[in-house]
Amino acid sequence: MNSVTCDLTVSLDGFLAGPNQSLTNPLGEGGEDLHRWQFEELEANAAAIEGILSSGAYIMGRNMFAGPGQGPLDEDWRGWWGEEPPYHAPVFVLTHHPRPPLEMQGGTTFNFVADGVESALAQARSAAGGKDVAIAGGANTARQYLSAGLIDELRLHIAPIVLGAGERLLDGVENLRLEPTEVSGTRLVTHVRYRTIH
Amino acid sequence: MNSVTCDLTVSLDGFLAGPNQSLTNPLGEGGEDLHRWQFEELEANAAAIEGILSSGAYIMGRNMFAGPGQGPLDEDWRGWWGEEPPYHAPVFVLTHHPRPPLEMQGGTTFNFVADGVESALAQARSAAGGKDVAIAGGANTARQYLSAGLIDELRLHIAPIVLGAGERLLDGVENLRLEPTEVSGTRLVTHVRYRTIH
Repeated sequence: MNSVTCDLTVSLDGFLAGPNQSLTNPLGEGGEDLHRWQFEELEANAAAIEGILSSGAYIMGRNMFAGPGQGPLDEDWRGWWGEEPPYHAPVFVLTHHPRPPLEMQGGTTFNFVADGVESALAQARSAAGGKDVAIAGGANTARQYLSAGLIDELRLHIAPIVLGAGERLLDGVENLRLEPTEVSGTRLVTHVRYRTIH
Repeated sequence: MNSVTCDLTVSLDGFLAGPNQSLTNPLGEGGEDLHRWQFEELEANAAAIEGILSSGAYIMGRNMFAGPGQGPLDEDWRGWWGEEPPYHAPVFVLTHHPRPPLEMQGGTTFNFVADGVESALAQARSAAGGKDVAIAGGANTARQYLSAGLIDELRLHIAPIVLGAGERLLDGVENLRLEPTEVSGTRLVTHVRYRTIH
């Protein structure tokens, strides 16, 4: 069966984003520094980036589709990823408001799932064509899948910065048992792959 | 000049100890799992352990000398490390209550410093005989030295466990800039060495 992976970049103090996220400041105050490794060290981090982008299907929370800090959605809202989102694969969006699938350019189709995380995973597995399914975020979605024991590999990309406030990945996650299987890094990031122990 | 190092074992969610630390449960609930790597994988982690134990002098907070959860100290209290503490070197204890040095077996002498972190560091540097000075903890002491920009190398030993509550290392630490210089690990720990950028 396909593996379920989850790649997340966190600060050294465990935040996925800084405080006061908004559409104009999507990663919150200080949060843009989290992702310097993906832009400034593209070659050195090629394997990690390839790992993030090679899944057969993605699952994300409603806020990650809508855009940070977005209120109720207009039915015409096509997500904040632009007309050609970077996924190039089926994306399953957890929502309370079902709507028809939204086909974007470049192979990304947003599918809206209103009946829970397990249903979204079953649909994503089926759509992934044997490739991995990635939990793309945000924090709340990752926490739900971690707490439910549905993630096989958590790949943390730890940026050497302290954000001090924001949204923490692991707050409230219980019964999570992990085993590091591989570590590597550069001056802007430490990659740790964790296998979950069920 | 001697380097100032700080070795700390933290949970994946950033805690140095679990909740409800006491003399009978010094690492708090769940906290003993933090240090499994030092006991169960002694050989695989020999270099990291050697790094912790090779300093020329140590600095610790009052609570780390007194013992977790200890109230006001009897003047006769000889610390909770037993008659032969594992330091085998001068140890400088930050306190508000000066007292004469306390010479233990095996080369450890506890010196009590009541005039602040910079004074303790100057005394430790002088006593270290050219070797490194280690900030031994606890969380509050490490935070004070980190915030003051007095630590040259932070060596985190990240245990793959989630404690959920307890004492966090980095809460309230500001203006800390770090650069990872080396990563390694085993199934019970991920070692990351960080150089501080002043």
